[in-house]
Amino acid sequence: MTERAPATEPQVGAKQPSDQQQAVEDALVARVVASFDHTADPRLRKVMQSLARHLHAFIRDVRLTEAEWNSAIAFLTECGNITDDKRQEFILLSDVLGASMQTVAVNNQAYANATEATVFGPFFVDDAPRVPLGGDIAGGAPGEPCWFEGTVTDTAGNPIAGARIEVWEADEAGLYDVQYPDGRIAGRAHLYTDRNGTYKFWGLTPTPYPIPHDGPVGRLLTATGRSPMRASHLHFMVTAENLRTLITHIFVAGDELLANDSVFGVKDSLVKQFAPQPSGTPAPDARPLGERTWSRVRFDIVLAPAGT
Amino acid sequence: MTERAPATEPQVGAKQPSDQQQAVEDALVARVVASFDHTADPRLRKVMQSLARHLHAFIRDVRLTEAEWNSAIAFLTECGNITDDKRQEFILLSDVLGASMQTVAVNNQAYANATEATVFGPFFVDDAPRVPLGGDIAGGAPGEPCWFEGTVTDTAGNPIAGARIEVWEADEAGLYDVQYPDGRIAGRAHLYTDRNGTYKFWGLTPTPYPIPHDGPVGRLLTATGRSPMRASHLHFMVTAENLRTLITHIFVAGDELLANDSVFGVKDSLVKQFAPQPSGTPAPDARPLGERTWSRVRFDIVLAPAGT
Repeated sequence: MTERAPATEPQVGAKQPSDQQQAVEDALVARVVASFDHTADPRLRKVMQSLARHLHAFIRDVRLTEAEWNSAIAFLTECGNITDDKRQEFILLSDVLGASMQTVAVNNQAYANATEATVFGPFFVDDAPRVPLGGDIAGGAPGEPCWFEGTVTDTAGNPIAGARIEVWEADEAGLYDVQYPDGRIAGRAHLYTDRNGTYKFWGLTPTPYPIPHDGPVGRLLTATGRSPMRASHLHFMVTAENLRTLITHIFVAGDELLANDSVFGVKDSLVKQFAPQPSGTPAPDARPLGERTWSRVRFDIVLAPAGT
Repeated sequence: MTERAPATEPQVGAKQPSDQQQAVEDALVARVVASFDHTADPRLRKVMQSLARHLHAFIRDVRLTEAEWNSAIAFLTECGNITDDKRQEFILLSDVLGASMQTVAVNNQAYANATEATVFGPFFVDDAPRVPLGGDIAGGAPGEPCWFEGTVTDTAGNPIAGARIEVWEADEAGLYDVQYPDGRIAGRAHLYTDRNGTYKFWGLTPTPYPIPHDGPVGRLLTATGRSPMRASHLHFMVTAENLRTLITHIFVAGDELLANDSVFGVKDSLVKQFAPQPSGTPAPDARPLGERTWSRVRFDIVLAPAGT
């Protein structure tokens, strides 16, 4: 398709199209929108017609060249090629464009004092092991031990017993278990709050890591001068009856990446003090830690009512 | 991720977000746009920032639910899975959303009496065989013979000698050669105009066919009540020195699909009379056709100057 190049040199500032040309382009948008008029599901009709309008507005806004269209097709094709059951390049793409975070924002509006949500990310696994309260989710993953504790309440402050808490995090090498080829399960688990709505577990002090950047999304970040690094964090998903499911992270206060998170996931309310514990400090549960340093953090979770 | 469903029931008419919520969403758009500020290539910066603005506008416009976001990721993943070197689902997707045709429109603006362009489609192959003037491009593909002839000129009417004409079409079963698993090369060729700018060749009378619809794009068409059928056509790509490359089709006058082409490719000026020739009518080149019917069509091609 190199034959098409002469007509499609990229231009930074494109010429303003003539009235006649704009009418041609408008007419095409109208035809495409109308093609969805007979969609049986009214919600699907609305979504597709809006998608068509915004997609065409983008193409017309930038005067997309045919070479750029080819690049876009090739880019999406590469995203498809690298995606498998353990690597999800389309989620990464959505993440680095802020589309994931905007979807979170639209669907998890602020509600009283409820804990804020953030991106889900591509590394959740459905069948993580259960650990008892106070158990260790690290599963042998390398890193500094960290003691997590807190409560789950509703917005009136009532403790929620039996709330299911899923947690997952990368190890100190910056990798989640599913990124290793050996099938390990580590750095992830689920547990339940006790009758007082409290929870506690051992994990790892979160460390920064890059999103997978050896694929097309990584090349996009490089070409646009952006870093693939994520601010240090641990993931939570908290579910309880009649309450809005919360998908969020906690971040580490003082992390220099907080202002520059590659997926736009940071919210001030989710930045927590991870208190460093010098070597020899006794653990809350008397776990023998020898000469190791460790850290501890408190995260009190407030769930909004379902349907808010 | 079924746990997220309660907060994300699809709604046809979404609630108007509060001022506070809109401010949250605006701030996120601003952060995403700013993340591209340090893109070295100013054109890439412009494209990515525009893409981010339009993508976020779409998500906010429809109040995209998390379930719908999941469906979108799954849809793109399926497009990736089915795409290989012979099947290009991302091009099909662009085609049925009219994005391909809008890109053609933006890059091939009307110029004097120059022949209009239309979509390239996913079935072009770079190394199609050469046929002599008057040769047969069918290569054994089944279908009714059709005699194509015409001229290639510039917009002042000067004949263009040695213009390269690529032509490709589906057979009467509705399939291009590359859609068969046997590696055949049929229904495609290239040839050159003679010193008078004229061309002629045998091909097949175009017949309607569906775009490949056994994948996610086909399911999208079904869900939206749209037909996968393309109006009958034959593809042309015409290249000549100092002239704008023309990528187009000719369509068959009277085809009932003209008003409902699945990729929005039809333009009135490209609809041609394919004159049916009764059995026994002598061929222009005295080709022995026995009792077969055939058709003939004239298509005079006018190329705009390069760079227009």
